[in-house]
Amino acid sequence: MIIIKSKSHDYSVEFFSSFEDTLKALENNRNTFYLVDNNIGRIYKSAFSSDRHLDKCIFIEASENQKSYENITPIFLKLLQLGLKRDGVLVVIGGGVTQDIGCFICSVLFRGISWQLIPTTLLAQADSCIGSKSSINIGAYKNQIGTFYPPQRVLITSSVLSSLPYDEVRSGLGEIIKLQLLNNELDFNALINDLSLISNSSITSVISKWVMKSLEFKKTYIEEDEFDLGIRNKLNYGHTFGHAYESATSYRIPHGIAVILGILTATYLSARLNLVSYNYYNKLKATLSPWYTPFEKELINASREQIFQAIKHDKKNTAGVVNCILTQGSGHMNKTAVNFEEMLKPAVHDFLDNEI
Amino acid sequence: MIIIKSKSHDYSVEFFSSFEDTLKALENNRNTFYLVDNNIGRIYKSAFSSDRHLDKCIFIEASENQKSYENITPIFLKLLQLGLKRDGVLVVIGGGVTQDIGCFICSVLFRGISWQLIPTTLLAQADSCIGSKSSINIGAYKNQIGTFYPPQRVLITSSVLSSLPYDEVRSGLGEIIKLQLLNNELDFNALINDLSLISNSSITSVISKWVMKSLEFKKTYIEEDEFDLGIRNKLNYGHTFGHAYESATSYRIPHGIAVILGILTATYLSARLNLVSYNYYNKLKATLSPWYTPFEKELINASREQIFQAIKHDKKNTAGVVNCILTQGSGHMNKTAVNFEEMLKPAVHDFLDNEI
Repeated sequence: MIIIKSKSHDYSVEFFSSFEDTLKALENNRNTFYLVDNNIGRIYKSAFSSDRHLDKCIFIEASENQKSYENITPIFLKLLQLGLKRDGVLVVIGGGVTQDIGCFICSVLFRGISWQLIPTTLLAQADSCIGSKSSINIGAYKNQIGTFYPPQRVLITSSVLSSLPYDEVRSGLGEIIKLQLLNNELDFNALINDLSLISNSSITSVISKWVMKSLEFKKTYIEEDEFDLGIRNKLNYGHTFGHAYESATSYRIPHGIAVILGILTATYLSARLNLVSYNYYNKLKATLSPWYTPFEKELINASREQIFQAIKHDKKNTAGVVNCILTQGSGHMNKTAVNFEEMLKPAVHDFLDNEI
Repeated sequence: MIIIKSKSHDYSVEFFSSFEDTLKALENNRNTFYLVDNNIGRIYKSAFSSDRHLDKCIFIEASENQKSYENITPIFLKLLQLGLKRDGVLVVIGGGVTQDIGCFICSVLFRGISWQLIPTTLLAQADSCIGSKSSINIGAYKNQIGTFYPPQRVLITSSVLSSLPYDEVRSGLGEIIKLQLLNNELDFNALINDLSLISNSSITSVISKWVMKSLEFKKTYIEEDEFDLGIRNKLNYGHTFGHAYESATSYRIPHGIAVILGILTATYLSARLNLVSYNYYNKLKATLSPWYTPFEKELINASREQIFQAIKHDKKNTAGVVNCILTQGSGHMNKTAVNFEEMLKPAVHDFLDNEI
C-alpha cells in the first residue's frame, strides 16, 4: 500500500490480484454508485451483475467527446435520479478519460462527494491515478475545465491489463519510461532491461513492479507540489512536443508513444544546447526506438505547420519563447525558456528530417 | 478591513465610499476580466465605459435560469474567446446569483483562477459574500452543483444599495436579523432599535454598520467550519421552513422575508417543545411582524402539501425526522431532530392557522 499526502486528505493506493477481489474490497451499501467504462462493463459483465447492483452502475463511452463539460450533464442528472446523496460514494472504474469525468463530477456534485478509483489502463495505473487532477473539454477547448480533487482510495489490479490490446499496454509504457528517466539512470536501466526480457504475453506480470515504482516516484513530486505551481512541471518532460505530435497526427500516435517521441525531441534539443552530450542522446534513441518505430511514419507525414502551431499554443508558453523541460542526463531535468524562431523551430525540423 | 481565514487562502473584505472608488481599487491590467449583473452595468454605465475596457466585461441576467450548469456554458466560452488565461483574474460584480455563477466558473476554469467580488445587494454584502460557497442548478435540481472557492478580495460599498428597490433592501435584512439573533440579545436589540429609527430613504446609511457586524459574526462560524460539516449548520436557522415557504409561494416571498418567517416558525416549534418560553416567542413575533406582515397573505394562501413536501425534501433531512435549528433564546441555537408526523407537522399547521 502507498499513502499519498494531499492538502484535502491523505489517500491510499492498494494492490489486488484480481478484478473480482478489487470489487469485493469496496464497501457496497445503498449509497455506493458506479461510473464504469463500457469496455470494462462488457469484459467483467458477470462481476457487475453478480456482485454489484446493476441499477446503480452508469456505463459510459470513454471518449474525448464524452469527456466534455456539456456532454457529462446527463451523467450528473442520472446520478441525482438514482438517488445519490451528499454522503454517497462514487466508484469510478476505467482509464484516464473515465477518471477525468468521474473526478470532475465528484468535485462539484453537492460541493464535493467521496469517490474511489479503480484505474484499468496501464497509463492510469502507473501515472494519472494519483495527483488529484481532472481535465475536461468545453466547446472546442481541450482540457480547460477541471479541478484538484483526490479520491479516498485507489485500487489497482494488474490483472485487468491482460484484457487490453498490446498496443494500449505499450502506449502506457511511455509515462513509466518518462518517470524512470526523471528518477535516475540505475532505475531507468533496470526498467529497460526488464522490458527487453518480456514478451507480449508476459508483459503484465513484469509490469506490476514498475507500476508501483512509478507511483512511488511520482508521489514525491505531487506531495511537494500538489497544485502544479513548481517542481511538478518536470513531469511534463516530453509533453510539449508529445502533445503537438498527438494533435498533428489526429491522435493516431497514442499518448505514451507521443511522450516517448517528445522525450527524444527534448533530449535532442538539450544536446544542441550543450546541456547533454550527443552520445547520451544517441544511446537514449537506440534504447527507445523499439517503442516508437512502429509509429514514426505517422509523425514524418504530419503537417509541420500543425506541429509548430500546437507547440506555440501549448498552455505553458508565452509569446516568443517556449518553456521546455530539458535534460542534463537521467535524473537532471529543468524547465528552460527556449527561443521559438531561433532555436526550437530549426532543432525540431532537423529532428523530424534526420533523426527519425 | 476584515480578514477571513480559509483553508485555501486568507482573503480580505474592504469597504469603500462609492462604486467608482471600488472599481478604482481593483488592479486593471490585460488579464483582468469582469462578470457583471446587467442591472449594475446599466446603472453604472459611465463607470464601466470610462474606466474599464468594455470588451473585457461580460454582462449577464442575474436569474435562477441563468444560474445553471447548462446555461453558464456560453460564459465559459466567452471568457476563453476573450483570452482569459490561467493567471487571469475575474472580477464578479452583482448579487448572490452573479456571485454563485462567478465563483463556480472561477473554481473550475483552468482548475481554478483568482477572483474578486463586489457584492451589490444587501443580502450579498451582509451574508453570502464570505463563506466560500457556490451553488448552481442542473436540470430540475436546484443548487446541487457547487464548490468551496473563496475570492482573493471582497470589496463593499453601501452606496450601491441606494439604487435598489426598498423591498429588496428589506429582504436583505432577513439574514442580518438572523445573524444577530444567533449572536446575542444585546446586539439583536440594538439592531432592532436602529432599524426602527430609520426611514425608507435613510436605510442605507444606517445599514453599513450592521453589514460589518454581520460579517464579523459570520466570520467566526465559517472560519471554524469552512466546509459546513458542523457548527456552520446553525447559520441555517430559519432556513428549512424559509426555503419551504419560498418554493411553495413560487418565490413571491423574497428570501430574507421567508427566512424571518422561518425563524418565527422555528421559535414557535421551540416553544412547543419547551425549549424556550412562549413569552420569548411572542416578543420576537411582535418585533419581526413589521417585516413579514406585507407578505403573510402569500404564505396563508400557499399549499400546505407543497410546504410539507419541501420540508421533507430539504437536503438536511432523512426519513421520519427533520433536522431543525431550534432555539433556547437569543444566542442559543442547536440542531435538533424533530419527528415529522408527530411533532413538526401539527406545529407548522397551528403556526400557519393561528400565528400569522
